[in-house]
Amino acid sequence: MGKGLPKRSEDYSQWYNELVKKADLAEHSAVRGCMVIKPYGFSIWEKMQAALDKMFKDTGHANAYFPLFVPKSYLSKEAAHVEGFAKECAVVTHYRLKNAEDGSGVVVDPEARLEEELIVRPTSETVIWNTYKNWIQSYRDLPLLLNQWANVVRWEMRTRLFLRTAEFLWQEGHTAHATRQEAIEETIQMLNVYAEFAEKHMAMPVYKGVKSESERFPGAVDTYCIEALMQDGKALQSGTSHFLGQNFAKAFDVKFADKDGKLEHVWGTSWGVSTRLMGALIMAHSDDDGLVLPPKLAPIQVVIVPIFKSAEQLEAIRGVVNNLEAELKALGISVKFDDRDTNTPGWKFAEYELKGVPVRMAIGPRDLENGTIEVARRDTKAKEVVNVSDVVQKVQQLLEDIQQNIYNKAFDFRESMTNKVDTYEEFKSVLDEKGGFILAHWDGTAETEEKIKEDSKATIRCIPIDAPEEEGKCVYSGKPSSRRVLFARAY
Amino acid sequence: MGKGLPKRSEDYSQWYNELVKKADLAEHSAVRGCMVIKPYGFSIWEKMQAALDKMFKDTGHANAYFPLFVPKSYLSKEAAHVEGFAKECAVVTHYRLKNAEDGSGVVVDPEARLEEELIVRPTSETVIWNTYKNWIQSYRDLPLLLNQWANVVRWEMRTRLFLRTAEFLWQEGHTAHATRQEAIEETIQMLNVYAEFAEKHMAMPVYKGVKSESERFPGAVDTYCIEALMQDGKALQSGTSHFLGQNFAKAFDVKFADKDGKLEHVWGTSWGVSTRLMGALIMAHSDDDGLVLPPKLAPIQVVIVPIFKSAEQLEAIRGVVNNLEAELKALGISVKFDDRDTNTPGWKFAEYELKGVPVRMAIGPRDLENGTIEVARRDTKAKEVVNVSDVVQKVQQLLEDIQQNIYNKAFDFRESMTNKVDTYEEFKSVLDEKGGFILAHWDGTAETEEKIKEDSKATIRCIPIDAPEEEGKCVYSGKPSSRRVLFARAY
Repeated sequence: MGKGLPKRSEDYSQWYNELVKKADLAEHSAVRGCMVIKPYGFSIWEKMQAALDKMFKDTGHANAYFPLFVPKSYLSKEAAHVEGFAKECAVVTHYRLKNAEDGSGVVVDPEARLEEELIVRPTSETVIWNTYKNWIQSYRDLPLLLNQWANVVRWEMRTRLFLRTAEFLWQEGHTAHATRQEAIEETIQMLNVYAEFAEKHMAMPVYKGVKSESERFPGAVDTYCIEALMQDGKALQSGTSHFLGQNFAKAFDVKFADKDGKLEHVWGTSWGVSTRLMGALIMAHSDDDGLVLPPKLAPIQVVIVPIFKSAEQLEAIRGVVNNLEAELKALGISVKFDDRDTNTPGWKFAEYELKGVPVRMAIGPRDLENGTIEVARRDTKAKEVVNVSDVVQKVQQLLEDIQQNIYNKAFDFRESMTNKVDTYEEFKSVLDEKGGFILAHWDGTAETEEKIKEDSKATIRCIPIDAPEEEGKCVYSGKPSSRRVLFARAY
Repeated sequence: MGKGLPKRSEDYSQWYNELVKKADLAEHSAVRGCMVIKPYGFSIWEKMQAALDKMFKDTGHANAYFPLFVPKSYLSKEAAHVEGFAKECAVVTHYRLKNAEDGSGVVVDPEARLEEELIVRPTSETVIWNTYKNWIQSYRDLPLLLNQWANVVRWEMRTRLFLRTAEFLWQEGHTAHATRQEAIEETIQMLNVYAEFAEKHMAMPVYKGVKSESERFPGAVDTYCIEALMQDGKALQSGTSHFLGQNFAKAFDVKFADKDGKLEHVWGTSWGVSTRLMGALIMAHSDDDGLVLPPKLAPIQVVIVPIFKSAEQLEAIRGVVNNLEAELKALGISVKFDDRDTNTPGWKFAEYELKGVPVRMAIGPRDLENGTIEVARRDTKAKEVVNVSDVVQKVQQLLEDIQQNIYNKAFDFRESMTNKVDTYEEFKSVLDEKGGFILAHWDGTAETEEKIKEDSKATIRCIPIDAPEEEGKCVYSGKPSSRRVLFARAY
């Protein structure tokens, strides 16, 4: 089987690119750096959105919508923020085109220059805190717990579908609080929401931690993150949650009166995940034959392929399948019956394998005689012939098993790829021979972090949130360290 | 009661503006022409999206996502299209800012000028048809039935919240077909989907029709629309569905091989509704005390206000309400129990009236003794004391009644405001004294249409889709006409 994908072991990067295209997930558009998310890919993203949106609402957040454009002067109000985003942003300078005088088409109308340039939002802290200034006067207005689903633009020079694109889709939560403690609790709560989503829905285990200063979000006091492991041994940052302190409140002068009427600056958080999660999902589980999707995010959970030589046989099969389909749908399971006669069963098997459909059923004339149906699972490729009367229960069980099995496999892989090392020699040899996560002591300086990065291409992914205190010596400098941090080469 | 809104009869326009702000629906942002959609307003939009999205999927469409940016040269490929959109578009010319040499902040980096300017999409026909070119080779690839939910930008000089903003949210469907007939059927199908949504969900009756040539979408062969009537007697175009013929297929060279292998250009449609529907919803039903929302789109369908003087009384009330809430929620009814002690019942009554919550219940100590609860409906303001044991059934019935009543009221109003006139004198006097829709004969020329518009500010809203043939004379020119068309002053 297989649809002519490169093998992961031969060229992981090419395997990823081809898989994204062949499975109809996304493609590059004619606009440099921007992608087209194709219907099949988008339907996976919709499932992610629905699950996340519910989790946000269950934790008390509401959705809103803020403008696409950020006035240039806003970006500058927070020093680290402008430093972080000014170098890679799309700038709107004019609001009109006109016909060229030489008849060569349309050109920018120089008379329609904006007084102040607008930046296409790379993130919305500045626009939102400028708005919060008007919404927050008193402690009664707090906490303010909002989220938006939006597109953002960061002008990336080297792009890869889902992983790094100039325009991407994401959600960005922006909350405001009366106390430092409450804002920190919110930051951690949303980190936990992301981790739960990654593990329960994406079947992807993650490490939770806090970034070192050099990897911090521009404008944050602390950036928390979840880090996942891809099958090539590289890490992928899958979500971030920022404790903003009072930085944006001060930049935009957002104050509230506490119960005693005293004015104080508001405390903030922001947190986001993006279509990058699509890349993580693909790379965490898929194999040389195509996508492997966790049932909770699969747009089609079960596909039924009829095997027939005549219209009569197909009609007989349809009789069995109609009931089955209805029963499965009543249980909330998404089913597709692919009765096209333009493609062979073999072609269909390969197609749904490529698309990562968790359960495939096949039913032919002999099954009709025997009252059976063949049930195959995508993750292990195990097949089984089941009585039609048992198949609904079988499928329910299989979907749960597959979700769990995919997670277990990824978890075991990550465990086997997480290594404690105590010397820099070992650090480099593990990195080169095996990859994965390395738990090592670090002296806490940006200088050492940078030197390790330059020398090994490994970065500090995070300081794990539950890292135990442990006396040790920095693998690079030999200076004292009190806990291990997580290194990896990363996407 | 009332929250200090202007009266509709005194200043309809000001009433609308104030209502949008006071009911927490939206506000102007610091970015000229762009709005902030506030959480309460956005939750109504989310309900609209959910209902529409389901209707699109039920008619076979899938969602996808295409880039925000349109290369300038794409716009020019369809002559009418560039003519229609070039004059009011946001143009990205640079991809980087840098620190000003005089230390005054960040400025556009002149070295980071784009080779080709990018337009922030005003609509996506060009980007999408350029993509379809690669997706469509054979009749087997057709029909292609896609939709996207997105933000778009049209640089409007005069803006009004929801009704006309530089950036707005919308959905745009883009379909490709093998035959002219099939594309026309799709265009009409989506027009009917919009009409059904307007009538069944928004409780807003609409006329369906086709636009005159001068009001056609730039690049379309025919533009179909739904037109609704606002309470001030002005019409509001609430959705459009375009038959594109082969215009975009020719502009982007999109051909398919039919069953005989013959290459033909593809036939197209596009259709959209936007956050403008929020404006329509507000203006169609609301009154001097605030929003009136149809239950199907109300984020909170039922609010329960406790009337208490002590914590003990509140606890006793909570005992009754908890059960009630659970029962209502189990039926899919959204309920809010507002037990805050920071506001009086009277303040809360006015607040939920302003917010358009369809059903309000109040329960106090006397109700506890009697086993009753007071139930009030927002639309008619009728109140009734009901036994607690009957209240769930009562609420279910009320929500249905309110949905129907709001529709009936709007329908009766529209009927009373739709007048046939046969002379231009009458045309003008009906328009000035009464407003509303006018059914009148028109000679079919753009010249007459333009003259009527200049003189009376009324435009042809549409040629009704079911307009009967009827011999007559144009009210303006006296030339022969074979059917009446629908005129109105419009938003």
